[in-house]
Amino acid sequence: VGLLKLRDVGERALVELARKVCKKAPRTKVGIGDDAAAIDVNGKYLIVTTDMLVGRTHFPPTTTPRQMGHKVVVANLSDLAAMGAEPIGLVFSVGLPRDLEVNFVEELLRGMDATAREYNTSIVGGDLDESEDIILAGMAFGTTAKRELLTRSGARPGDLIAVTGSLGTAAGGLRILLDQMPVKGYRKLVRAITEPTARVREGRLLARSGQVTSAIDVTDSLAADLWQLARASRVRLTIDPAKLPIDPLVRKFAARHGLEVNELALFGGEDFELLFTVRSRGWAKVKRGLEHLGAKATVIGEVSSGSGVFTRTPAGLEKLPNRGYEHFK
Amino acid sequence: VGLLKLRDVGERALVELARKVCKKAPRTKVGIGDDAAAIDVNGKYLIVTTDMLVGRTHFPPTTTPRQMGHKVVVANLSDLAAMGAEPIGLVFSVGLPRDLEVNFVEELLRGMDATAREYNTSIVGGDLDESEDIILAGMAFGTTAKRELLTRSGARPGDLIAVTGSLGTAAGGLRILLDQMPVKGYRKLVRAITEPTARVREGRLLARSGQVTSAIDVTDSLAADLWQLARASRVRLTIDPAKLPIDPLVRKFAARHGLEVNELALFGGEDFELLFTVRSRGWAKVKRGLEHLGAKATVIGEVSSGSGVFTRTPAGLEKLPNRGYEHFK
Repeated sequence: VGLLKLRDVGERALVELARKVCKKAPRTKVGIGDDAAAIDVNGKYLIVTTDMLVGRTHFPPTTTPRQMGHKVVVANLSDLAAMGAEPIGLVFSVGLPRDLEVNFVEELLRGMDATAREYNTSIVGGDLDESEDIILAGMAFGTTAKRELLTRSGARPGDLIAVTGSLGTAAGGLRILLDQMPVKGYRKLVRAITEPTARVREGRLLARSGQVTSAIDVTDSLAADLWQLARASRVRLTIDPAKLPIDPLVRKFAARHGLEVNELALFGGEDFELLFTVRSRGWAKVKRGLEHLGAKATVIGEVSSGSGVFTRTPAGLEKLPNRGYEHFK
Repeated sequence: VGLLKLRDVGERALVELARKVCKKAPRTKVGIGDDAAAIDVNGKYLIVTTDMLVGRTHFPPTTTPRQMGHKVVVANLSDLAAMGAEPIGLVFSVGLPRDLEVNFVEELLRGMDATAREYNTSIVGGDLDESEDIILAGMAFGTTAKRELLTRSGARPGDLIAVTGSLGTAAGGLRILLDQMPVKGYRKLVRAITEPTARVREGRLLARSGQVTSAIDVTDSLAADLWQLARASRVRLTIDPAKLPIDPLVRKFAARHGLEVNELALFGGEDFELLFTVRSRGWAKVKRGLEHLGAKATVIGEVSSGSGVFTRTPAGLEKLPNRGYEHFK
């Protein structure tokens, strides 16, 4: 084990290692391994998360500094949304190369500030350092009432599996940018990857409904995040690929470029939608509540006892590969 | 202005830029520009800070992964201490090269966990990414009662200037490591730079005393941090170099290697002591309280109306250069 390198182990093994080494304090309700931590402070939960984006790895070519600022704020707020939290604020540690222009930094800050304010929150502090690559390490914090907390571990047999918005849009946009395809007609796809939306209001509604049993935000990929939910809740998740909510423009894009649309929806990342499980008798209420916000959610499957993630195919159940954006390996 | 590069401007100009761009929300009592942010949450202040260490820049050669973990926790807790906060927890975004050994990560985590627990707090979450250099971006959060908050801006003419512990020890240790001098006999100096102490209990005592008017932790250098206090409080600070608390071992080390001991104490960084101003009639009480904790503090000067930082010399007052560890420029 001594000479094992990081490239030889998956991200999950490293999270397990961190969970083993870092002792959980009594007031910590949820520690390492969920979308965010939940700590008991004065009878409520303080929800805290951190998410780092590093220049070369995380931003597609042509990303503007304003978009970088936008995205790192959304990535952090999306983790709060998955816990059902109301955001309070964000802080950032920013590392920048010495020969970057001051204008770049101003645009980056403007993107961060404008996006935080879109979600009724603000940047309250930071640390600025010199580094070779662009480093944006964010931390977001918020609160929930104790009975409103959403985690990955509450799904129960009989619950429905649902997802907000639609899937595969960001993956389509990423393809366009990476392959330098023409953007014309597909601006919506490109915006999904460069200027994503965090489902903060939706997360609050799910939390308050009292009907939602678990939640996670779709960042790695729907498949990988289904596996996370199944593992944390110790249940089996079965989804019907025909029910995946996919934007017509994504279908058109996939057809034109010979891409499999379900591949984009299942294994593409960074949609920042909320994947959740809901009591079947509570579903109608949740759906109505979301519609009232101008949002939508779609049932894509159901929870049963057992383990693993499966898709319903004409030939029967098939195990869904656990693939996604992985940082190591 | 358009083509100005980061290397052409100081860190302070960038902090000013961030303060200008990022709008302060009404519930934010202290925003960008102090040691940490203070936000009004349920009648108390939530104190939040972030501090990032990047491998090549921040760690002297021979630093072990356990020491890296120790130091990034201390750097973050020290910012909370300077606000008088009681720590609640920490989260970390960690970037690591793919060909690092898993053992390295385990040692890093052990250093972080053990150090957090030394201060009765814990690591509650994190994010792990691939990067070229080692990136440790930490965020620490805690609370204070409203009337206990310490900031940089409360110093008043007539107050005394004091500092906990002693100064220049870490700078001596850094010299030893950078110049690869023999460590024997000077282990205390090396430990000050590789395994520093955050003055968390001292900060809580200063906050509760009701006699301390401003505080900052000594990270850049005593000189640079005096300038920060003077600027934030709009006062003049005058110090007596003969009163600087310097460990006898640092004096011996400086004498042996032809170094100016006051240079180490005034312009060396990373002592992580608390520099604070205190009402002159409250000083005896604060000093007794600190002694009760097994800690010490020394009066090094006084606050008057005006601006700038001065040292008392036989020839009269002399302006103290504003020098320290600067990240840009």
